[in-house]
Amino acid sequence: MARTTGSDGEKTEAAVREAAVSLIARLGYEAMSMRQLAAEVGVQAAALYRYFPTKEDLLFTLMREHMEGLIEAWNAARPVVADPATRLAAYVENHIAFHIERRHSTHVSNMELRSLSHDRLTQILRMRTTYEKELRAILRDGAEAGVFDVEDTGLTAMALIQMMTGVIVWFRPGERLSISEVTATYLSMTMRLVGAKARSATTTYSAGRANDAVAL
Amino acid sequence: MARTTGSDGEKTEAAVREAAVSLIARLGYEAMSMRQLAAEVGVQAAALYRYFPTKEDLLFTLMREHMEGLIEAWNAARPVVADPATRLAAYVENHIAFHIERRHSTHVSNMELRSLSHDRLTQILRMRTTYEKELRAILRDGAEAGVFDVEDTGLTAMALIQMMTGVIVWFRPGERLSISEVTATYLSMTMRLVGAKARSATTTYSAGRANDAVAL
Repeated sequence: MARTTGSDGEKTEAAVREAAVSLIARLGYEAMSMRQLAAEVGVQAAALYRYFPTKEDLLFTLMREHMEGLIEAWNAARPVVADPATRLAAYVENHIAFHIERRHSTHVSNMELRSLSHDRLTQILRMRTTYEKELRAILRDGAEAGVFDVEDTGLTAMALIQMMTGVIVWFRPGERLSISEVTATYLSMTMRLVGAKARSATTTYSAGRANDAVAL
Repeated sequence: MARTTGSDGEKTEAAVREAAVSLIARLGYEAMSMRQLAAEVGVQAAALYRYFPTKEDLLFTLMREHMEGLIEAWNAARPVVADPATRLAAYVENHIAFHIERRHSTHVSNMELRSLSHDRLTQILRMRTTYEKELRAILRDGAEAGVFDVEDTGLTAMALIQMMTGVIVWFRPGERLSISEVTATYLSMTMRLVGAKARSATTTYSAGRANDAVAL
């Protein structure tokens, strides 16, 4: 899509996406109307259709950008050369950080898949598979190297992803625990779950973020 | 609620609940109309209102019965006197079995909380807390007895519940794995996650169901 950085058009489109994510998270996709969304952004409904010709185009864009963002974040965070435990720690830290920052978008991406057309659903699921395969590869490498104890890499990857994404259901910044405390605990649980041969998992394996003293 | 066992009224009410669960799982609560539901069941919309005066009464009933069912199932499955690892195994087995059998109902219970009134949301969340407290007590007892290695019982309980409930997202009977295989793998992962002192976790701790040779 051709965009002029910082143009009014881009600003409006960004405002539409942002408002859509929080409206859909609150009301559900089927219940939200484009008219309601336009009112929230403060534009005419006709203006929305310039950016998103159909309501489903909007939903698909939100979901695609969520997955693209997740894959990009992982590509930036992944260690170039590292042992499986260090790679797993980086995956856990990136996954939790990404989803905590995008609670509503995660909610929308997980709850509204049923409203995508078959082809678009396939595209989103393919992106998810790409991302999950990275975790399966780490688990497989660890099992083959004898440093992880994993019965089934597919099941273990799903279990870890659902456990980690679940953080957004209950975590609220500013309550009992900071993001770094939550991440450190999830890192310990993950290392035990995959049977990582202990060498002080949380401290040694952490790629850094979990130990930052950032209390949010 | 006064009910005559097997009466036409009871049958209709059960049919309404069943159709509602699958319609809401498919369309979302906000998008489903009582008219649509009536058509699905094959009754007049007016007949629905005899059982559920408002659409929200229906949603609340579905969610309350889901949680009551889960708590009842756990009360029936819980070992009367047992060590923490055996109790944890029973909790895992019951949780997975209950949710796999009620995929749509679990979906509705997790996705549609936003549509409950404040008081009713509070009631449902209180029931969830009751159920989750059971798991926290098991984890705490295990940690105090020195048989589990758990940093934070609250976080660990949430992680386990989300990991286990997540099974319904990807599990389909008749595919690669049977329920008993999935349960056995989740049991091993759980025991490692809580740092259970190994004494052949899956076989010793299993309360039975995971080892049944029932391939579904």
